[in-house]
Amino acid sequence: MSLVSQEALAQHANRESCWIVVHNHVYDMTDFLDGKFICRALFCPQPEVEHPGGSRIILRYAGKDATAAYEPIHPPDMISSNLPLEKHIGVVEASEASSVPQTEEQKQREVVLASRPPLDEILNLHDFEAVAKVVLPPKAWAYYSSASDDEIAIRENRAAYQRVCFLPRILRDVTSVDWSTTILGQKSSLPVYISATALGKLGHPDGELNLTRAAAKHGIIQMIPTLASCSFDEIVDAAQPGQPLFLQLYVNRDRSLTKKYVQHAERRGVKGLFITVDAPQLGRREKDMRMKFVDESGTAKVQEGQDGVKKNEGIARAISSFIDPSLSWKDIPWFKSITNMPIILKGVSTPSDAIKAYEAGVQGIVLSNHGGRQLDSSRSGLENLVDVVAALKTHMQWPNPNFSIFVDGGVRRASDVLKALALGASAVGVGRGFLYAFSAYGQEGVERAVEILRDEFEMNMRLLGAQTLSDIGPDMVDASGLRARAGIAPQDNLFSATCRFFYFLVVI
Amino acid sequence: MSLVSQEALAQHANRESCWIVVHNHVYDMTDFLDGKFICRALFCPQPEVEHPGGSRIILRYAGKDATAAYEPIHPPDMISSNLPLEKHIGVVEASEASSVPQTEEQKQREVVLASRPPLDEILNLHDFEAVAKVVLPPKAWAYYSSASDDEIAIRENRAAYQRVCFLPRILRDVTSVDWSTTILGQKSSLPVYISATALGKLGHPDGELNLTRAAAKHGIIQMIPTLASCSFDEIVDAAQPGQPLFLQLYVNRDRSLTKKYVQHAERRGVKGLFITVDAPQLGRREKDMRMKFVDESGTAKVQEGQDGVKKNEGIARAISSFIDPSLSWKDIPWFKSITNMPIILKGVSTPSDAIKAYEAGVQGIVLSNHGGRQLDSSRSGLENLVDVVAALKTHMQWPNPNFSIFVDGGVRRASDVLKALALGASAVGVGRGFLYAFSAYGQEGVERAVEILRDEFEMNMRLLGAQTLSDIGPDMVDASGLRARAGIAPQDNLFSATCRFFYFLVVI
Amino acid sequence: MSLVSQEALAQHANRESCWIVVHNHVYDMTDFLDGKFICRALFCPQPEVEHPGGSRIILRYAGKDATAAYEPIHPPDMISSNLPLEKHIGVVEASEASSVPQTEEQKQREVVLASRPPLDEILNLHDFEAVAKVVLPPKAWAYYSSASDDEIAIRENRAAYQRVCFLPRILRDVTSVDWSTTILGQKSSLPVYISATALGKLGHPDGELNLTRAAAKHGIIQMIPTLASCSFDEIVDAAQPGQPLFLQLYVNRDRSLTKKYVQHAERRGVKGLFITVDAPQLGRREKDMRMKFVDESGTAKVQEGQDGVKKNEGIARAISSFIDPSLSWKDIPWFKSITNMPIILKGVSTPSDAIKAYEAGVQGIVLSNHGGRQLDSSRSGLENLVDVVAALKTHMQWPNPNFSIFVDGGVRRASDVLKALALGASAVGVGRGFLYAFSAYGQEGVERAVEILRDEFEMNMRLLGAQTLSDIGPDMVDASGLRARAGIAPQDNLFSATCRFFYFLVVI
Amino acid sequence: MSLVSQEALAQHANRESCWIVVHNHVYDMTDFLDGKFICRALFCPQPEVEHPGGSRIILRYAGKDATAAYEPIHPPDMISSNLPLEKHIGVVEASEASSVPQTEEQKQREVVLASRPPLDEILNLHDFEAVAKVVLPPKAWAYYSSASDDEIAIRENRAAYQRVCFLPRILRDVTSVDWSTTILGQKSSLPVYISATALGKLGHPDGELNLTRAAAKHGIIQMIPTLASCSFDEIVDAAQPGQPLFLQLYVNRDRSLTKKYVQHAERRGVKGLFITVDAPQLGRREKDMRMKFVDESGTAKVQEGQDGVKKNEGIARAISSFIDPSLSWKDIPWFKSITNMPIILKGVSTPSDAIKAYEAGVQGIVLSNHGGRQLDSSRSGLENLVDVVAALKTHMQWPNPNFSIFVDGGVRRASDVLKALALGASAVGVGRGFLYAFSAYGQEGVERAVEILRDEFEMNMRLLGAQTLSDIGPDMVDASGLRARAGIAPQDNLFSATCRFFYFLVVI
Repeated sequence: MSLVSQEALAQHANRESCWIVVHNHVYDMTDFLDGKFICRALFCPQPEVEHPGGSRIILRYAGKDATAAYEPIHPPDMISSNLPLEKHIGVVEASEASSVPQTEEQKQREVVLASRPPLDEILNLHDFEAVAKVVLPPKAWAYYSSASDDEIAIRENRAAYQRVCFLPRILRDVTSVDWSTTILGQKSSLPVYISATALGKLGHPDGELNLTRAAAKHGIIQMIPTLASCSFDEIVDAAQPGQPLFLQLYVNRDRSLTKKYVQHAERRGVKGLFITVDAPQLGRREKDMRMKFVDESGTAKVQEGQDGVKKNEGIARAISSFIDPSLSWKDIPWFKSITNMPIILKGVSTPSDAIKAYEAGVQGIVLSNHGGRQLDSSRSGLENLVDVVAALKTHMQWPNPNFSIFVDGGVRRASDVLKALALGASAVGVGRGFLYAFSAYGQEGVERAVEILRDEFEMNMRLLGAQTLSDIGPDMVDASGLRARAGIAPQDNLFSATCRFFYFLVVI
Repeated sequence: MSLVSQEALAQHANRESCWIVVHNHVYDMTDFLDGKFICRALFCPQPEVEHPGGSRIILRYAGKDATAAYEPIHPPDMISSNLPLEKHIGVVEASEASSVPQTEEQKQREVVLASRPPLDEILNLHDFEAVAKVVLPPKAWAYYSSASDDEIAIRENRAAYQRVCFLPRILRDVTSVDWSTTILGQKSSLPVYISATALGKLGHPDGELNLTRAAAKHGIIQMIPTLASCSFDEIVDAAQPGQPLFLQLYVNRDRSLTKKYVQHAERRGVKGLFITVDAPQLGRREKDMRMKFVDESGTAKVQEGQDGVKKNEGIARAISSFIDPSLSWKDIPWFKSITNMPIILKGVSTPSDAIKAYEAGVQGIVLSNHGGRQLDSSRSGLENLVDVVAALKTHMQWPNPNFSIFVDGGVRRASDVLKALALGASAVGVGRGFLYAFSAYGQEGVERAVEILRDEFEMNMRLLGAQTLSDIGPDMVDASGLRARAGIAPQDNLFSATCRFFYFLVVI
Repeated sequence: MSLVSQEALAQHANRESCWIVVHNHVYDMTDFLDGKFICRALFCPQPEVEHPGGSRIILRYAGKDATAAYEPIHPPDMISSNLPLEKHIGVVEASEASSVPQTEEQKQREVVLASRPPLDEILNLHDFEAVAKVVLPPKAWAYYSSASDDEIAIRENRAAYQRVCFLPRILRDVTSVDWSTTILGQKSSLPVYISATALGKLGHPDGELNLTRAAAKHGIIQMIPTLASCSFDEIVDAAQPGQPLFLQLYVNRDRSLTKKYVQHAERRGVKGLFITVDAPQLGRREKDMRMKFVDESGTAKVQEGQDGVKKNEGIARAISSFIDPSLSWKDIPWFKSITNMPIILKGVSTPSDAIKAYEAGVQGIVLSNHGGRQLDSSRSGLENLVDVVAALKTHMQWPNPNFSIFVDGGVRRASDVLKALALGASAVGVGRGFLYAFSAYGQEGVERAVEILRDEFEMNMRLLGAQTLSDIGPDMVDASGLRARAGIAPQDNLFSATCRFFYFLVVI
Repeated sequence: MSLVSQEALAQHANRESCWIVVHNHVYDMTDFLDGKFICRALFCPQPEVEHPGGSRIILRYAGKDATAAYEPIHPPDMISSNLPLEKHIGVVEASEASSVPQTEEQKQREVVLASRPPLDEILNLHDFEAVAKVVLPPKAWAYYSSASDDEIAIRENRAAYQRVCFLPRILRDVTSVDWSTTILGQKSSLPVYISATALGKLGHPDGELNLTRAAAKHGIIQMIPTLASCSFDEIVDAAQPGQPLFLQLYVNRDRSLTKKYVQHAERRGVKGLFITVDAPQLGRREKDMRMKFVDESGTAKVQEGQDGVKKNEGIARAISSFIDPSLSWKDIPWFKSITNMPIILKGVSTPSDAIKAYEAGVQGIVLSNHGGRQLDSSRSGLENLVDVVAALKTHMQWPNPNFSIFVDGGVRRASDVLKALALGASAVGVGRGFLYAFSAYGQEGVERAVEILRDEFEMNMRLLGAQTLSDIGPDMVDASGLRARAGIAPQDNLFSATCRFFYFLVVI
């Protein structure tokens, strides 16, 4: 492979001829700036596409190393396996000057990373969030933490757990307590699985692999996201033999791609297929969208009328255009025909859809509003759980070994998990909790998070008077306040807001 | 027409002889300072009146150009068509000195306007409000944003929507979704109409025309306000051929004026008559009223005892004295006799009045508390909707093609609209949302607001699993929390407020 | 009467011989420092007492003019009519030096008074409170504004009104609306009376007379407090011929004093007797009590162990020790035997006591928790109203011309009054609202307050669609949220309070 | 006993030879750094243990005086009676240099103590908390004030009382009111007992003796904690003859130790045995745990990987490892066999466990969530009281002289106590309230606290219209709002949180 000099690179740094460097390889992106890009990757969402992020972002790296920007949001082989071979120019000549110099933001980030609290000072999952908020680059924080519209759903997800009280039992021998379980037939050391979250490399260079490795070590199950930064095979390769994995699936408009993807996953040993059904279109996450307007200097100064960049879309919309909005109940038999994995519908809300799912013959549902990232004001999974369980009880044998209910959204404590279990869930998904853990501390962070949850489970089981999870039932909680949602907390307009005389109070 | 020199003007700058300049014409206002003003305008609310703003405000412009102060709160032909011709002195001689020099406030406003965020950074209707709050002159902000008394009703209008959750449906083919509808037989691209708000020129020199032009472009319907800054005909003239318009009506004590106004509107093609029934007297909007006391320096230093200025009344009261408080159910047959337009009662609250309206033969009602600007503590339209629909169901065929229920107040999101539709509304009025949009960005702002709503409708329809608006029903929302109104959020007096020892904490 | 020189005064400025000056008269207080004080005043609460404020406060004024401290909390003739004549030393010789020099506090107060907003900028009753808070001396503010314990009851009094919504009616002719009424057979221009509050001279030199004069001018009824700063006769003398007045009564341990007082009041034309039944002992108002510890410099530096001053009691406790805690239902026949005035029990809470009151033959009750100043956590009058009215309806003819229910506590708006009337009250008492009005602006303040209420009544009646108060009924309000009391509004401990890493966020 | 010179001490200041000074005696701790410690104390929780605080903390004091650190968390005879005699080196030679010099923290604390407000300015129990917060060393404040996890339970304990209103009765002769009672047959001047709290010497050098002495003086009952800083016998010795005392018991894994302890207590006259049943494992109190990471400089700079210190455990976990998690209903007969003291189960939550307790033949229960320090989200005792009383009424004779219900948690006012009594409790435990009182002011603080409660009882009894506690019943409270728990109070995301244009508002 030919060596490309810095001088050569510098001559191809414009719209007429645009070379970029990714992982030390030089690619000629010129045609891609104008025309279509024909994707030949295995799971490529859209075989023929413009660059979702626009051509301008590519031009910014013309003649430069784009690896840092490329990596978190593309599978590693995306460019090499899709760009026609004649556009593979060669390997870049080693040079100090070849890389984009470290930005102020990067320097500041290193300072921040160095001053993280030691990991053993992290006492709960909230702490990871606090650290991640500081450690993460602003765009990554915006992408991870954002939720749709007015962020009511994400707020309610957490608040709902606070509205359930425990009614603990006393004087039961709790010398040994056991909170292990099985999820879809797979052993899990906790009644918790790692729920899928996209674009892990935004938070840490090892991306989703942090989760895979920690899950192996602590006996919990990871759900692999379709929109992972690491490729599916990278993740599976990182798993230990026999380590159970689930797969989260966004269904492609081209079903043949979906079929290949699902069957490949099954062949590689995946134990459960979670089909996302609450995202025919990805939600408007305004915190994420606003990030597009903020340039490096930190102030919003993007000029009007710049073409090429779709300015009013965040990362989420840019990467998700392949998702099929026509997905419907009619597709379920087809899924059952292409795989023997248990099929779980992820993103169910209502009793009627839960019953439909059961009747369609899937193995379970996740009561979820997608972490508050899709339909805002969508009721929290915990609230829906109560209605769904009540409906299933009148409709079928319940509990039912062939049909599981999972819940996700807003879970940060073992006590949250136990409340959901008491109300009928089989296990609970935690997404952002683990995402923030590796964003802040990598694999060790995830391990610490599991240890914290384990400690919390031990304590909570003992204090509830429960030896195993089968002792956790509806009589251990008071959910009578579950519907008492938190509205806005208004200012007291009776006095302060209608009174102008504060100036008077201050002047004196 | 004779030319008036600056010197001549300067000699008529006192109570004895008071000339003012409006749109370059010079008028002698001297008589008007003392006696009555005989109004000959077509829709003049009060044929014989003192200047509602007092004579002092006129005297302030004696010998000067009053256009800037005159324009936003008077129809353009008010002075020229009503002042006796002999008082039309002539045209002012062009001169630098003729205009009142640009005030600090005006200069500051230009700076503010220049630093508005680019329009494509505006992501939701709240953003317009944030920009408008800064961009608007203080009096305009006070007039637009104020509500009555303790501003409980305006707060509840918005809060009520947050108390309704969505219960979305999954696995429905939502490739194409359609949120268009008809409102009183007129096509609308959204289930939203532009509700009437007064005095648009306070916010933008083009006033209500911003709405007319944007409505034309995007296929939505504007309701023309009686108290528009632009004259009725200006607005209709600005509309495209066939563009549907509604008219909001304050009923005049002199019914013959009202009759002329209504019939003129019908002749000009207006498609619906919204009679305001919740404003026999305009509310006390204290934020607006307080503006009267704040002079240009920004501090409240008006001396006691100045005559001529009705100091304790805001803009709202000053412009509304013509409204007839005797309007009653007995008048409805008369309205039906003078027009064939559909008649809608705007400002209904209770089931009993809704049924009366139906029995009186009108075509619909708007459940509204006038944006919280009339009776404070009046229950929100969304809450009333639930009771009214329940009552109508027991009283008549419902839904009923001959009787529509609209709701307004507090709507800022497509999700708000869909909640109202799910609970039985036909369409929803948005007032301040569009008002702030053009106050901040003129016509383009209104267009952007419509585009935002359109995007929100598309996403919300998909995420709810609804292909058309007919799929939106009561089973898609949980309104069980709708009555959980937000009370005042008190301080925790258990500790902080009864404890004096904070001084002690601080001193150490 | 002999003239007392400044030199003579200066020689009697110690514990051995302690002369003080009040209203230019010199009194020898020496004996009173040690022994008992025999009171011979007509309504003296305790015929033989130590000085309730302790002897030290008297000593502070030895040889000086004590008028300013004496006046607000004693009837004017207290000292002259009770001190043995031989202790009346004479009249002080006019001298600049005779008076205590104006303190910093007094000087500051004059500055504050001068910078009050003009009265016509006061738009609602909250505004008076804002001004009074600044204008009042700290002790007066503490005494007036304080409530018992954790101040939950006072908070709930106001909050309860916010929890009731209006359901207004439309299309009723409201050209003329009338909100006048009769209270215990007396005409009142508003359905509001001035409720009794103690120690008016703390707020204004004219004390309760401000109310008497304003009430005369505007046709409303004042309830004279037992603990007025002005004497009963002063107040009645200030009334216009035929002006109706009520009397609030604290019952003395010595019933003969009470009898004299009541019969004197009836002779002087008082039209109703409001016996306070919720104060067998005055409440602990800690804000008031703390004032005792704050000396002139504004910091709490009182040393421990000072004898003579009962330090841990506020003004309220000091002046109220005469009240009889043995007052019981057995006393009611006696009251009926000594007067023909209508008797009203002020401070009732429960349906059972309301029924007892009716059966005891009194003419009405005031549902009141004493402005939150007595039993903290006592439920608000408005909440009690709903239960009491429901109970009376099942127990007797209701409404009943011989038995009236009044409510007080937390009322600041005509809308509050109308809510209470809708739920069954005959009229509503306003105490602090008027107290703050005269504290801030004297009689003119009270007049302005009445005018504001009148404007609010006019507007609210029109907007409710009510021509007279008889149109105001339970169908005009939604009180379903009345029980949704405001609890404490906690911080979100899920994150902020359990997370220590804020230091980390700040450091970076 | 031999004299140890400072020079000798200085030579034994390392891991090879580690001498420390406690109460002027020198001990050789070298072996203890590495191996096990054989405890021979009477009630030693763990006969063979490593130092629960790790060896590193001992090393810090090698060659130095460790008394200040040792004293608050060890019984005084712990070291002398357990360390083999040959390790008792001798008595330290008096020397200025022998003691660790006063730290900045200690100096600052003395300043703080000197500036405490005089005791008679303390008006309620909240005030003690405010002073204690400032006066206490940070670790002590953390240990005392902390609660588990997100501190929801501790918050709800207090909030629950605010959700109950009083319905007072009028016109009852309340000249003399009596709030004395008996608790488990023992006279108490208040319906309140001092609940057990651990480690009193963290707050004051006299530790729990402050409570014993004040209880004697004021006729109330103290519950002695197992984890007292003072030894059991010290406390009993400090009591007056006949002074009733209760004992709180953590049950040891070695039941023979528990038996000795209980029977010793009974012999010494203890009148009631409160067995803690809600703490098979002590809760995670994160505020306490975080203290471990904060060194003297006040910032968290502990390096990772230091062995020996169990860094992620607070004081609570370190001292409690002896508690037996196998304790169960089967043990109750055994307890009844070893003592004739009344047995009370402390930490019951549910009706089913309350009934079990009654059937097991114990004399009562404490409805408690351990001050919010154990299972977070555990429902407050006051809420549980309502359910438990309702259940007992259907299950047995109730009230029942042989079975008492107590409540603790969040009580700060006599009004709180009266609410609990109205709902069925026999008496109420106050823990932190008295703990803060002596932390701030020693024994005098506790006495003042009792006096304050006494004053509050007098006032509240009078204002409720209750002559004795038997008049306090369910008809005096409205507990309908008791379930309206306080959720999180969210920000209004409709505007502020989703709007980025605050920068814009600020910049202008």
